[in-house]
Amino acid sequence: VKTISIIGSGNVATVFSKKLFEKGFLIKQVWSRNIENALTLAHQVNAQAINSIEDLDFLQDAYFVAVNDSCISEITQRIHLNDKLIFHTAGSISSTVLQKSSKNYAVLYPLISIHKTVELPDNFPLFITSSNKFANTFVNEIAMHISNNVQQIDDENRLQIHLAAVFASNFSNHMFAISNELVNKSNFQFDILKPLIFQSIQKLKNNLPIEVQTGPAVRNDFETMQKHLELLKLYPELKELYLSISKNIQNYHHNK
Amino acid sequence: VKTISIIGSGNVATVFSKKLFEKGFLIKQVWSRNIENALTLAHQVNAQAINSIEDLDFLQDAYFVAVNDSCISEITQRIHLNDKLIFHTAGSISSTVLQKSSKNYAVLYPLISIHKTVELPDNFPLFITSSNKFANTFVNEIAMHISNNVQQIDDENRLQIHLAAVFASNFSNHMFAISNELVNKSNFQFDILKPLIFQSIQKLKNNLPIEVQTGPAVRNDFETMQKHLELLKLYPELKELYLSISKNIQNYHHNK
Repeated sequence: VKTISIIGSGNVATVFSKKLFEKGFLIKQVWSRNIENALTLAHQVNAQAINSIEDLDFLQDAYFVAVNDSCISEITQRIHLNDKLIFHTAGSISSTVLQKSSKNYAVLYPLISIHKTVELPDNFPLFITSSNKFANTFVNEIAMHISNNVQQIDDENRLQIHLAAVFASNFSNHMFAISNELVNKSNFQFDILKPLIFQSIQKLKNNLPIEVQTGPAVRNDFETMQKHLELLKLYPELKELYLSISKNIQNYHHNK
Repeated sequence: VKTISIIGSGNVATVFSKKLFEKGFLIKQVWSRNIENALTLAHQVNAQAINSIEDLDFLQDAYFVAVNDSCISEITQRIHLNDKLIFHTAGSISSTVLQKSSKNYAVLYPLISIHKTVELPDNFPLFITSSNKFANTFVNEIAMHISNNVQQIDDENRLQIHLAAVFASNFSNHMFAISNELVNKSNFQFDILKPLIFQSIQKLKNNLPIEVQTGPAVRNDFETMQKHLELLKLYPELKELYLSISKNIQNYHHNK
């Protein structure tokens, strides 16, 4: 049986360590700056709660770093494991940030958003990056207990996919937020746009996005675009965004 | 029994007139510039196919104009109906473009994308605008045979919703297209982004988009944004778009 300690107590720490606990891994210590948070998670995975890095023992097989991206470097430079496995889950942080902690380091990057209250799907893409064969075998064993869809990736490609995910998820969601704001300026609510949104997404099941692009920009319908820009004249930022995205759609479809 | 003639033979003309034919309306004539297209639709709704506006008789109860937005004005100025109902289905074209054809005019705007090969949902929003009580009663009767979700709207609000739909559907789809392009620059395919995309959309069932915004921009994570911009340095247009959308997310969440 493999033993793991968890640095962090947020959404990824909670969801992944509960999953590993259920699959038979022993969770030994849970660190959080806030002892209440450490206790909440430790209680669920039968572990010891600590709130000082000095209390972390270095006796376990693996150390799972699940703190905010911006704290990974600062916290791991205080952890010296020699050859125990250490891994983080951040898409945009290089695996090599962990090399001061151990020669056996890895990244386990879930391409899905993870929340304590939401059940994980079985087959979301879980990407692994590792420093050597030992780390790879071990992190792969851990990964296969979390998802059925484990894939190898290097630091560079992981960052590229992280960027793609920003457009696919964060930026598309902002388009929905803007549409919500615009629809509220009429007498209607966001609900009226949902059938259209769900239908657009449905099309992606069997088509690439470029194959199902519609709207005034892709058909060079300048008359309709002009009417939209007239409506946006009181919102210069939205007008600018409308123009940039429309121009990008036109270049993307007509210059290629 | 009400009689209708159809000007056009595209997706909206086909889907709506088949639906009305099934519900007991009599479809009398189908006009298309291309007689083959007119025949294809006319055959399905037991109507006469014509390809000259001069052959259109003015004996029917209603005239359904379902040509490209850019042709509505040109075609309808050759149609003089006195008091027969005439209606188009374009979100961004004023109903008043039809006032030269009849005093009884209307718009029937479906907030969904319509394709010959795709089954219509039962309850997509179908907005009606009309010139007077007679036109309203009649176009409402037609609309209720097409959707269970018929709502009244004026020309101004319809254009506003049309603009909102561009962000909700066309612009979000372009974000997916860009993510597809970016993911192809790694060794992976668009498929790996689908679980994330479907999960993001799922969240909109019970939340407003502003409540589920994630990503580096909304959390002011400049370090990650800097890494993304570095990756985009060879693609100045995408870099500009990344900056505009990120700036807009930040203003939207932090200045309000």
